[in-house]
Amino acid sequence: MKPYYAVIFSSLKKKNIPEYDVMAVLMEDLAQQQSGYRSHETACSEIGITISYWDSLEAIAQWKQQVDHQMAQRLGKSDWYEWYHVRICKVEREYSFGKE
Amino acid sequence: MKPYYAVIFSSLKKKNIPEYDVMAVLMEDLAQQQSGYRSHETACSEIGITISYWDSLEAIAQWKQQVDHQMAQRLGKSDWYEWYHVRICKVEREYSFGKE
Repeated sequence: MKPYYAVIFSSLKKKNIPEYDVMAVLMEDLAQQQSGYRSHETACSEIGITISYWDSLEAIAQWKQQVDHQMAQRLGKSDWYEWYHVRICKVEREYSFGKE
Repeated sequence: MKPYYAVIFSSLKKKNIPEYDVMAVLMEDLAQQQSGYRSHETACSEIGITISYWDSLEAIAQWKQQVDHQMAQRLGKSDWYEWYHVRICKVEREYSFGKE
């Protein structure tokens, strides 16, 4: 398996943020245009978890520096999140069941 | 930072599984009793994502072999999930904002 990387973004959102869903979709679209982007998964109940998968640490660093994404990161701290936690991980092994 | 590991479990559940929530809580309790367990996070909307964090690959391997957990893994394949995907990852770097 060619090694690849996961960015685990877990967060607790503030209440009543009308612009959040629009911005989240914009950021997803933007991420998908980045070099080295592979896929992402997201789920949200009490907390939100979004995991994006990337070819390399360099691709993750470039995504973090992307201008519009930096604006979202600033708004995230000021307006959207009570807290968030980001973990950059190397996928060492994987297996699956059923059809994804 | 002492290195540690994440098990990303993403899944699509079948509909109408009354015993699932009970079993999920039992498995969470059981995981927390394992040697090397650190914490976990879970969210569920269209898909479910549960991430558990562990001190070592050995602790993850022991958890996978745990007898009751093996029973849950069998039921997972036969009864609960349309599909699931497991990724074993090494956490290389992390940062956070706000109070978790």
